[in-house]
Amino acid sequence: MASFVESFWGERNNGFDVLYHNMKHGHLSTKDLADFIRERATIEEAYSRSMTKLAKSASNYTQLGTFAPVWDVFKISTEKVASCHLELVRKLQELIKEVQKYGDEQIKAHKKTKEEVSGTLEAVQNIQSIIQALQKSKENYNTKCVEQERLKKEGATQREIDKASIKSKKATDTYKLYVEKYAAAKSDFEKKMTETAQKFQDIEEMHLLHMKEIVESLSNTVKEIHLQIGQVHEEFINNMANTTVESLIQKFAESKGTGKERPGLIEFEECNTASAVEGIKPRKRKAFGLSGIIKKEKDAESVECPDADSVSPVDFSGFHLASTIYSHG
Amino acid sequence: MASFVESFWGERNNGFDVLYHNMKHGHLSTKDLADFIRERATIEEAYSRSMTKLAKSASNYTQLGTFAPVWDVFKISTEKVASCHLELVRKLQELIKEVQKYGDEQIKAHKKTKEEVSGTLEAVQNIQSIIQALQKSKENYNTKCVEQERLKKEGATQREIDKASIKSKKATDTYKLYVEKYAAAKSDFEKKMTETAQKFQDIEEMHLLHMKEIVESLSNTVKEIHLQIGQVHEEFINNMANTTVESLIQKFAESKGTGKERPGLIEFEECNTASAVEGIKPRKRKAFGLSGIIKKEKDAESVECPDADSVSPVDFSGFHLASTIYSHG
Repeated sequence: MASFVESFWGERNNGFDVLYHNMKHGHLSTKDLADFIRERATIEEAYSRSMTKLAKSASNYTQLGTFAPVWDVFKISTEKVASCHLELVRKLQELIKEVQKYGDEQIKAHKKTKEEVSGTLEAVQNIQSIIQALQKSKENYNTKCVEQERLKKEGATQREIDKASIKSKKATDTYKLYVEKYAAAKSDFEKKMTETAQKFQDIEEMHLLHMKEIVESLSNTVKEIHLQIGQVHEEFINNMANTTVESLIQKFAESKGTGKERPGLIEFEECNTASAVEGIKPRKRKAFGLSGIIKKEKDAESVECPDADSVSPVDFSGFHLASTIYSHG
Repeated sequence: MASFVESFWGERNNGFDVLYHNMKHGHLSTKDLADFIRERATIEEAYSRSMTKLAKSASNYTQLGTFAPVWDVFKISTEKVASCHLELVRKLQELIKEVQKYGDEQIKAHKKTKEEVSGTLEAVQNIQSIIQALQKSKENYNTKCVEQERLKKEGATQREIDKASIKSKKATDTYKLYVEKYAAAKSDFEKKMTETAQKFQDIEEMHLLHMKEIVESLSNTVKEIHLQIGQVHEEFINNMANTTVESLIQKFAESKGTGKERPGLIEFEECNTASAVEGIKPRKRKAFGLSGIIKKEKDAESVECPDADSVSPVDFSGFHLASTIYSHG
């Protein structure tokens, strides 16, 4: 398996730079994750609000007719779906707080790490500058040697050759010095970089573990709410199964029924003139509940057919009786 | 069980009116149900759109750092959730079409029914008007009898008594006629109303059955999509489980790694003046990939340390070699 200790060397020696910035990017990931959860929460909140509105629509639908009780089933179920999504929002908001807390801890930890790895950064800068100096000193050494050789071949004066020889000697010493310095810098860099690469890998592993825990918490929450919504669906299906056609017909018949009494028999009733003329106070009639209509007609025909209560004290109990013997079948 | 045939009689005989309007309300319920499903579809569409946007956010999050590959997992899952909800929208729209089709059929059926029950409506109106006439004729009969009796008691002339007797006789006939008419109307109304109440109950049962089928279709669709979303969640959980910390570390090390070669050994190399002076074309060097930096410094110090390639034909293969023997471990 490719690890940080293995993979961040290379000619330019800038593995440290890549790993250091990667650690910093870890904090960006945390912020991104918080943003992602926040956006999801916003979506769920909007959905919940819409569902609450839909539940209200259901209760505003016609309360007339046999189907009316079904709207209650819809209303209850839709409200429950809405509150499941609101519960999700609440849990996501809690999770966002956790993510933010982790992000804050991360900043502190990164600051501490920056101090801890400062020696490695120096070692990186050291080996990089020594490599350059070494390169330069080697080039200078070669130039001076060639110059000395050229003067010899071209038969220059001894004084010129001696002067070139001194320069060449000096260049050789400098070159040798950098070869030694490089060996020390390389050893120091390798040691420190090995440690630091491992440290960065440890940090990264801890970060990823933490991020995966947050994501797991997110997916558990989503799953949990999903199951709750599934239960609401099941409940709806059961409630609909219980809302049978028969029960709806019965409920309507019971609540909107106009009565079970069929029209009663009405027979001719002889006038009881004796009691009428003796002035017996007649019982108040309850004529088929049509009193309104009858009253109107009575007013129009009051000359021909005067009000029975006030003018003609006749026993209406017979007629009244007829109207109450409606069969109960 | 309370049925329509039992429950829509009563004094006012307006059960027919209630049942007829109930049938008409059945069409309102159908329209309400279509509205409900339409509103739900709109909510699902908005949710789906928001989820698609969220998926895009996920792909816009930082692609730097070890966590970056996880955003792909989020993106794919979020897109799938979005498309599940879009599939729900599609199915709900199909369902709305079915509901509308049923609503149109309902209008036709109600028109037909209205014609079929017109005889019952006439019977209702007939019995209602006969009851009124009967009531009136009975009142008139009683009035006339009392009048005749009063004249007798008060010792009116025979002519007056005869005149009252004729009136009383006429009122008796009218009353008797309405008693007969009522018997016929009652029989006709009872027969027709029984049939029609049953017809209205049949219509209502068919309507409720159809509505329940639509609701069942709705809840099946919702359940089906809910299961699909559950699968997307499971898939996400599995994908996250497969996205191990180790694999993320490895992926990062492989894609952003700076090289596996640690800094190589560099030893002092004697200048090969012989070949240099003989004018052998030197091999192009590949100095630690620092050519850019070196070139800059070379330009600045070109007087003291001239370009090896053009001015000093020295063999750099030794240095070059040193830079390529970086250990592979």
